Amino acid sequence: MTIADRWLLPDGMDEVLPPQASRMEELRRTLLDLYHGWGYDQVMPPPVEFLDSLLTGTGTDLDLQTFKLTDQLTGRMMGASADVTPQVARMDAHSLRRQGPVRLCYCTNVLRAKADQHQGGRSPVQVGVELFGHAGLEADSEIIHLALTSLTASGACEIHLALGHIGIYRSLVEAAELNHDQERALFDALALKSPGALAEQVSASVADPALAAMFNALGELHGDIGVLQQARDVFAGAPVSVKTALDELDALYQSVLANFEVDIYVDLAELRGYEYHTGMMFAAYVPGYGKALAKGGRYDDTGRAFGRARPATGFSMDLKQLASLAQASPTKGAIWAPSQADEALSLAIASLREQGERVVQALPGQRTGPAEHGCNRRLEFIDGRWLPTTLAQETRA
Amino acid sequence: MTIADRWLLPDGMDEVLPPQASRMEELRRTLLDLYHGWGYDQVMPPPVEFLDSLLTGTGTDLDLQTFKLTDQLTGRMMGASADVTPQVARMDAHSLRRQGPVRLCYCTNVLRAKADQHQGGRSPVQVGVELFGHAGLEADSEIIHLALTSLTASGACEIHLALGHIGIYRSLVEAAELNHDQERALFDALALKSPGALAEQVSASVADPALAAMFNALGELHGDIGVLQQARDVFAGAPVSVKTALDELDALYQSVLANFEVDIYVDLAELRGYEYHTGMMFAAYVPGYGKALAKGGRYDDTGRAFGRARPATGFSMDLKQLASLAQASPTKGAIWAPSQADEALSLAIASLREQGERVVQALPGQRTGPAEHGCNRRLEFIDGRWLPTTLAQETRA
Repeated sequence: MTIADRWLLPDGMDEVLPPQASRMEELRRTLLDLYHGWGYDQVMPPPVEFLDSLLTGTGTDLDLQTFKLTDQLTGRMMGASADVTPQVARMDAHSLRRQGPVRLCYCTNVLRAKADQHQGGRSPVQVGVELFGHAGLEADSEIIHLALTSLTASGACEIHLALGHIGIYRSLVEAAELNHDQERALFDALALKSPGALAEQVSASVADPALAAMFNALGELHGDIGVLQQARDVFAGAPVSVKTALDELDALYQSVLANFEVDIYVDLAELRGYEYHTGMMFAAYVPGYGKALAKGGRYDDTGRAFGRARPATGFSMDLKQLASLAQASPTKGAIWAPSQADEALSLAIASLREQGERVVQALPGQRTGPAEHGCNRRLEFIDGRWLPTTLAQETRA
Repeated sequence: MTIADRWLLPDGMDEVLPPQASRMEELRRTLLDLYHGWGYDQVMPPPVEFLDSLLTGTGTDLDLQTFKLTDQLTGRMMGASADVTPQVARMDAHSLRRQGPVRLCYCTNVLRAKADQHQGGRSPVQVGVELFGHAGLEADSEIIHLALTSLTASGACEIHLALGHIGIYRSLVEAAELNHDQERALFDALALKSPGALAEQVSASVADPALAAMFNALGELHGDIGVLQQARDVFAGAPVSVKTALDELDALYQSVLANFEVDIYVDLAELRGYEYHTGMMFAAYVPGYGKALAKGGRYDDTGRAFGRARPATGFSMDLKQLASLAQASPTKGAIWAPSQADEALSLAIASLREQGERVVQALPGQRTGPAEHGCNRRLEFIDGRWLPTTLAQETRA
């Protein structure tokens, strides 16, 4: 094997070099501090769980994304965490068991068996928040506000917010009394975004002509806020839960509009995360990035299999992707120190470091100088004291 | 499957709940800031690599510790990172290719297939530093100082430092012209710490009586600084490289003693990480913890298989283990805000959060109160303004 072969990294399993790694660290702190300020407590889900626990109630999409491992201690199958959200829901349901609303946040590596066009690489750093125990719109609104605030804090400009609601499709499916196969076939047809395929599937599955018309209309219901009014007309005869979903979207729309300068796009045909979400869903984009920067929504009752069904809403982002947006903060540079062993020098270095300065001490025989190590000052012995002096411009090059 | 079964976590794959998770986050920041101040640049190694790369030049111990995964994209075997150090050495050798000394630091999750008595759980958060490109004692000394400073910053008291040097055993093995099997058998006998087993193995493998006596003595050479003088007598006729190793240990001992109040234990028979280390080795302990809190040493030329042999020295720790030592920092508590929709209230909340305050806003219908959510103040509307007021002691539970 050649050296070049040895170095090849698996697709989507990236290393992060300086200065990008410290930019990610900085952003991690900004976001976790933001969530702390909003009352969210940090948790760290287990990086690996038994497969039975990891995939309970999460659907096949996550199963396909999960790396499988054999536990040498028990012989049982384990999976590496591919999505932190259901894990955090289990922690709320089982480990914390607190009364009332529970706000949790996290920032952790996850692994994905396959890269898909929405998720980016196979080793994202998932950062996000989850709010459990409150079924109301205020919780959803807090989550969307926090997502938009996170993006702004990350340096995102010109944010586009896509809003949807899985309850509309679910209500229509229930009203049409579709079986699982029909439901899935219609779902696939909607996902194709092809009116022809949708119409074909609708005529094959939905007997009631009024409901059939609603399914067909669903595929077209995306655009600006006008879509909500259009939907009210189309779904005038639909179950009341459809009207409730539209009211919720309207209220969320107004609340975002009142607080943020973002473009809002309403998409009632968007069914991303269908096996998982139960209410409003959103995704935030910025120009130049095909992938959503933040994705979230309501996913009640995930904890049921763990003994405690709870309302839940939240969002998450990929810190790696976000950090590629962020501008590097200006640094104050570093101070170069000579290599000699001298107690006064050691004390001066320690004191500068305690003041928050970065001091790079040369090692004996070192051929590289202050400029190669990002230093803009150097410690010099002047009048019996070690003092940092600015490096002449030419030596800084 | 019962709910309790579903919840069982694999042995050593832990979840971290509040407040322990934020204690870890705080310690992570303290340590990474410390390393930044000493001139170390942060990197994030890939969490998964092809097995050929991951295990090149690292020995069988790491192989046994590595979870194996099949890459669905290529069919090649991959491994989850079980130890960041060789990955960082490859990043220095291949990706960075900088001239002169390179200082790198990291804090990242790793996975281990087996828990062993030295490593703690199977999902440690490995935090540490590596210094490449300098073969001198000053680099080793900087690493030991930084390790001890890290422990002090983490709240460790009564630190015990164990110092060793793999070069002594290696030099004797070379002088005795042992083959690989003999070398390994002797290594195992030394690891057993049984003089009888050692003597048996030595008499079977080492023909030269002077060298045989040195091997036998090696098993006994551990204790306080007197061991170094004892070793100088025992190894008077040994290759000069043994004397160099003893000189190095002496200098490191003096340099630690001059700067830290720690107990130093010299152990020349300690061969931990034999396949990996090439020079001085150290481990730091505190009373009440059987496992080392920090482990490090010199491991030159790991990058050779990647096209660039470089001197290297460093140490690492498990942030999970360290955080269990740390005292929680006193917090300033949080402010409870009512749930009403009121623009002045929203502005007051936003302004407090910007000042670094934690504000937990109630959600409509919420039954839990400020005390359950860690609040010691509440926002009240007084004389036309929203102001935080201290909660009466009785409502703070």
